[in-house]
Amino acid sequence: MSADASNQAMLRRSKPCSTALLLIDVINHFEFPDGDQIARQALKIAPKIARLRSRARAAGIPTIYVNDNFGEWRSELSVLLSRCLRPGARGARFVEQLRPDDEDYFVLKPMHSAFYQTPLETLLRHLGSKTLILSGLTTNSCITCTAHDANMRELELIVPSDCSAARTDEEHKQALLHLKSTLGAKTGRSTALKLNECTDRTS
Amino acid sequence: MSADASNQAMLRRSKPCSTALLLIDVINHFEFPDGDQIARQALKIAPKIARLRSRARAAGIPTIYVNDNFGEWRSELSVLLSRCLRPGARGARFVEQLRPDDEDYFVLKPMHSAFYQTPLETLLRHLGSKTLILSGLTTNSCITCTAHDANMRELELIVPSDCSAARTDEEHKQALLHLKSTLGAKTGRSTALKLNECTDRTS
Amino acid sequence: MSADASNQAMLRRSKPCSTALLLIDVINHFEFPDGDQIARQALKIAPKIARLRSRARAAGIPTIYVNDNFGEWRSELSVLLSRCLRPGARGARFVEQLRPDDEDYFVLKPMHSAFYQTPLETLLRHLGSKTLILSGLTTNSCITCTAHDANMRELELIVPSDCSAARTDEEHKQALLHLKSTLGAKTGRSTALKLNECTDRTS
Amino acid sequence: MSADASNQAMLRRSKPCSTALLLIDVINHFEFPDGDQIARQALKIAPKIARLRSRARAAGIPTIYVNDNFGEWRSELSVLLSRCLRPGARGARFVEQLRPDDEDYFVLKPMHSAFYQTPLETLLRHLGSKTLILSGLTTNSCITCTAHDANMRELELIVPSDCSAARTDEEHKQALLHLKSTLGAKTGRSTALKLNECTDRTS
Repeated sequence: MSADASNQAMLRRSKPCSTALLLIDVINHFEFPDGDQIARQALKIAPKIARLRSRARAAGIPTIYVNDNFGEWRSELSVLLSRCLRPGARGARFVEQLRPDDEDYFVLKPMHSAFYQTPLETLLRHLGSKTLILSGLTTNSCITCTAHDANMRELELIVPSDCSAARTDEEHKQALLHLKSTLGAKTGRSTALKLNECTDRTS
Repeated sequence: MSADASNQAMLRRSKPCSTALLLIDVINHFEFPDGDQIARQALKIAPKIARLRSRARAAGIPTIYVNDNFGEWRSELSVLLSRCLRPGARGARFVEQLRPDDEDYFVLKPMHSAFYQTPLETLLRHLGSKTLILSGLTTNSCITCTAHDANMRELELIVPSDCSAARTDEEHKQALLHLKSTLGAKTGRSTALKLNECTDRTS
Repeated sequence: MSADASNQAMLRRSKPCSTALLLIDVINHFEFPDGDQIARQALKIAPKIARLRSRARAAGIPTIYVNDNFGEWRSELSVLLSRCLRPGARGARFVEQLRPDDEDYFVLKPMHSAFYQTPLETLLRHLGSKTLILSGLTTNSCITCTAHDANMRELELIVPSDCSAARTDEEHKQALLHLKSTLGAKTGRSTALKLNECTDRTS
Repeated sequence: MSADASNQAMLRRSKPCSTALLLIDVINHFEFPDGDQIARQALKIAPKIARLRSRARAAGIPTIYVNDNFGEWRSELSVLLSRCLRPGARGARFVEQLRPDDEDYFVLKPMHSAFYQTPLETLLRHLGSKTLILSGLTTNSCITCTAHDANMRELELIVPSDCSAARTDEEHKQALLHLKSTLGAKTGRSTALKLNECTDRTS
């Protein structure tokens, strides 16, 4: 009803930036088949994603969490977050390094791709994003799926090799190879990635 | 990543029901052009929607809130709710009659239609919904838009005449006429609507 | 497989133009309930649409036919066209005034909206369209539906009052009023519409 | 406008069948980077796809061609077909083995996935399809992309190992492995595939 008015308001608040950083499924309880194995792989990349997010923040690049709703269908980030951070939760040590704050966007997805039945496309249009940096879990499932959907929307792709993980290193590497050769994604390490300043852009 | 597993879990918890009740944009701050006028019209229908929701609950029919994110993009229902319920908020008396509870589904939408870039279609598939009862705000904008999208997905439509509102009675009535003649929606009063029991269905 | 390469090729051939003209469901056999009545109303507007299309052509504005597949699912424009033009066909006199030619785009739709499950959005992105001129059939069904979908994609709308039709004048006028007041569509006569030249634009 | 009526008519003509066979990008001119190499790989699988299609026909399983529009945007199958079959065309020997006939469905796609901005979802709903058999080109691009989209719509997947191809055998095998391990696709040879009879089903 007031979508236009509100979204326009948001648009005015945001500085246009041609790049956006996505964190996929990092608010995670890892309660699913192979979850324990993925949680172990995930733990290794948490500091890399956290650092990339800090650098993006400093460069004026917006961070968008796109996260499974884990069957809750309540659109309640705080509930999801506390569930994942409770003592003994499988991924608590991973998730606590990657909590969203008030400047981050947070979008729920019902299935694997960050685009399928989510408002991501509208948000990216408002932000002026042309290039996506994909990070999170897992390289060969949700990230691959999201990358294909981004490619069909003619967005450029960067998938830093040290900011996503899969069940095994082999699956992770194979997925990166696929994204590079099929979609032309850049798959170098995050530390080698130059983030262009977006603070002084005009629309 | 684990969407399948989680959604399957949710599916098993829900009883299949061929009907679903939608409450559109009822968690609302009415801070937009004509918002004051719409808030006055909305206040009249709040008790009718509340009663319909109670009857749906009793009949085992799931209630789905589909609500504008009002440009927040944080997926935080509790924040949205407290913003709309704070003292002095335009629609507080309306919203307090229609708070979602733990059994309700809550889906955010970025634009007018409840289907556009939202997980509603997946949720309805999981619930087994074939007929939608549409209520909320406003009859000639988000409800009309949602009705057209539901019709293209071959869902049957019920739009009770006393459970939605627009800026004026004239716009409301004209929209109902349009939905009836163009989409074959049933537009009788909610009190005349028979809700089939969904409690004993099997998938 | 080669979608990117081919579409890029097409994009290079097309001059960017911020406006596009849509002809909705004009290749029509009118074999459906009320088809005879709609065919009569349609006949009145055919010369107006034809003239608008000529003016658009002269101004470098692309014309896109978006047409029901009428349940054929064969993607064969020539078959659809000859079916609608055969002697005795209800709408032959209407359709013969509005045949697409080699410079026009032609997109099939399975349902009412020109956007739902069609490539229209991709085509418009390639063309650089920001404003749509909607014409064709019928004002209160497919055109209304398409207008709502265009509005959610933040496209501007022009629906010339003399280039669309419905079952009755009353339904036609009421739909125009709705599109004007709800979506801000311009609904003046086509003859009063100024078409900006798109022939000298650069991307 | 008359989408409902027409589609209902089509639905009545089709026998419901829980399986559908997709032929992806087989009507192809191979005029793109690596096209020559892919054409050579494609030629090997043409007889396998042709045989699978014959068996599907005999079993009452509908065949759906989902094909790139190659930037033409005219929805003219016969033109596309003659372009691909003309003497000297790179893929003529491949395409001539796989021409669609009047009983096949033919859907155009603007990008890689058979689902993205196409009416495939509506067609599958009408046909009652729950399982897709994917064949065609190429395994690691359009077929992978389509498989992910099918999985998010909760369709079962069969990707016969001898009915699709990529630039290299290695890419083909790696893609099959990915589809099997990530999406649970069945990837045995087509000759080992049992096609259930769909001729005697009721809706």
